[in-house]
Amino acid sequence: MNIAIYGYGNLGRGVECAVTAAPDMTLTGIFTRRDPHTVHPHTNVPVYHADELLAHKEEIDVLILCGGSATDLPEMTPQLAKEFNVLDSFDTHADIPKHFDRVHAAARATGHIALISAGWDPGMFSINRLYASAILPNGQDYTFWGRGVSQGHSDAIRRIEGVLDARQYTVPVPEALDAVRAGKKPVLSTREKHTRECFVVAAEGADLARIEREIKTMPKYFADYDTTVTFITMEELKRDHMGIPHGGSVIRTGETGWDHENKHVIEYKLTLDSNPEFTSSVLAAYARAIHKMHTRGLTGCYTVFDVAPADLSPLTAEELRAHLL
Amino acid sequence: MNIAIYGYGNLGRGVECAVTAAPDMTLTGIFTRRDPHTVHPHTNVPVYHADELLAHKEEIDVLILCGGSATDLPEMTPQLAKEFNVLDSFDTHADIPKHFDRVHAAARATGHIALISAGWDPGMFSINRLYASAILPNGQDYTFWGRGVSQGHSDAIRRIEGVLDARQYTVPVPEALDAVRAGKKPVLSTREKHTRECFVVAAEGADLARIEREIKTMPKYFADYDTTVTFITMEELKRDHMGIPHGGSVIRTGETGWDHENKHVIEYKLTLDSNPEFTSSVLAAYARAIHKMHTRGLTGCYTVFDVAPADLSPLTAEELRAHLL
Repeated sequence: MNIAIYGYGNLGRGVECAVTAAPDMTLTGIFTRRDPHTVHPHTNVPVYHADELLAHKEEIDVLILCGGSATDLPEMTPQLAKEFNVLDSFDTHADIPKHFDRVHAAARATGHIALISAGWDPGMFSINRLYASAILPNGQDYTFWGRGVSQGHSDAIRRIEGVLDARQYTVPVPEALDAVRAGKKPVLSTREKHTRECFVVAAEGADLARIEREIKTMPKYFADYDTTVTFITMEELKRDHMGIPHGGSVIRTGETGWDHENKHVIEYKLTLDSNPEFTSSVLAAYARAIHKMHTRGLTGCYTVFDVAPADLSPLTAEELRAHLL
Repeated sequence: MNIAIYGYGNLGRGVECAVTAAPDMTLTGIFTRRDPHTVHPHTNVPVYHADELLAHKEEIDVLILCGGSATDLPEMTPQLAKEFNVLDSFDTHADIPKHFDRVHAAARATGHIALISAGWDPGMFSINRLYASAILPNGQDYTFWGRGVSQGHSDAIRRIEGVLDARQYTVPVPEALDAVRAGKKPVLSTREKHTRECFVVAAEGADLARIEREIKTMPKYFADYDTTVTFITMEELKRDHMGIPHGGSVIRTGETGWDHENKHVIEYKLTLDSNPEFTSSVLAAYARAIHKMHTRGLTGCYTVFDVAPADLSPLTAEELRAHLL
């Protein structure tokens, strides 16, 4: 199947790597809204301007959209679903129903297939919340994130006057994780679930006390959390904080038996060196799935909830039953 | 949807509890090959002899088969798939392809739907092996079982002369688990992955040294493992070993990036107080799924690989997208 990438940032670079590694996929093009000559892919795949997209329609079975959820994808995915089978990693949870409806209308009307919100949360974490709640209807769900870099929180710190650069790590509180895994069903406040660690490079002569205060009191981002601020040099940041690790756990604890006497714990845990490369790997697998589904005649918008696991694999149904079941 | 149970052992009792708790299911009957008067369900569901099954065909949307994999299910599932939508927990991994083919032929020819090998391994563990290998094609799979009671190994000990009763626990080796989780990709022998703990009640005057030797040298069951044998009294067994806990972890470690420089660990972990009640809970969720799939016109045999997660849930697609994605 022929895959193309729309948008070449961290996510697009990860998709290039994942698709190139897949035995059953060919990467036929990268499309960018920048000047194509300024984009340098790792492979020798051609780079085109986004305006040329329609001219390459015949070379694209699935177009993987690697834009951001804030402003790119809400417009991009429904628009492109009119011309292509598309896949995105839209991750603004509260806006998913609206996004779904718009993409569904566009794809259904034109006979295309689309899948939104692939990745790990939303994505693999969502699937695990669903499986666990279907199996243990009498239970409680917990999602912990980290230890990992939050791009949004790092950006928020960078916007403070006197900050040259910053990295923010989201860290689950070990005592909270332990209590959940032990089946104690704790009721946890935002502050009790995660802490936030900030590593900040300040401009020379900047008022460090003010920067720290502005971070710790920032509404929504930091005020509801126990936050630590550590000032470091640019050299230290470049040496120790250039990775983009992330991960976390989806845990459901539940009870079975007539008196709810038997406890069960289901945990799905990710430990990722590279958040964008893992997300890209999920996108590549779902590109395969929607291509298979479209070949079977399906159109309209889907999510990871609607995709049978077998469709993600390059193996045949017989091979899967013989070797993985 | 109307559900009936065929076979009323530990698994059938668990299904009775799970189906009774489901808001969208009604349990319409329990069928047994024993004298129905000797079977006492927890609820007031009617108990019928297996010979009466066909007379109740109209009351059954899905028949959940709670027989054993050794001798019951290989005959029972293809036979009953000719008359009912059926679901089993067939767990002899090597025989799954043959079992699938026989059930598929029977169900497809008569317009029924069937799903085999639901549970946790095969079942939820299989799904997680599939998802993880599709996302991280460059990686290694590990499955650890326990700490939990192995019924088959406990039975094997009970067949030794002089043994009154026994429980065998399968235990993962902590050092092996740690090495896998750390991404060290160890190559592990059978002995290095699990140990086996045996608690044995011997007859008065029995030759304990001989019993211990017979256990530890038993081919396939114990000879390839580091096995400990502890003799206990019947009172101790009844006090400390009446539960049927189990669980384990499916772990895939994999690499992404052009130089495979980024490591990722995906772990799915189950900690179960009651192995049969958890398996029953999985069966109830898949009964819902195949009923939905049959309503959409699907026939023939399926496995957990072929079922979209959404079909397991009583929630609508809209509710799932709004609350779990």
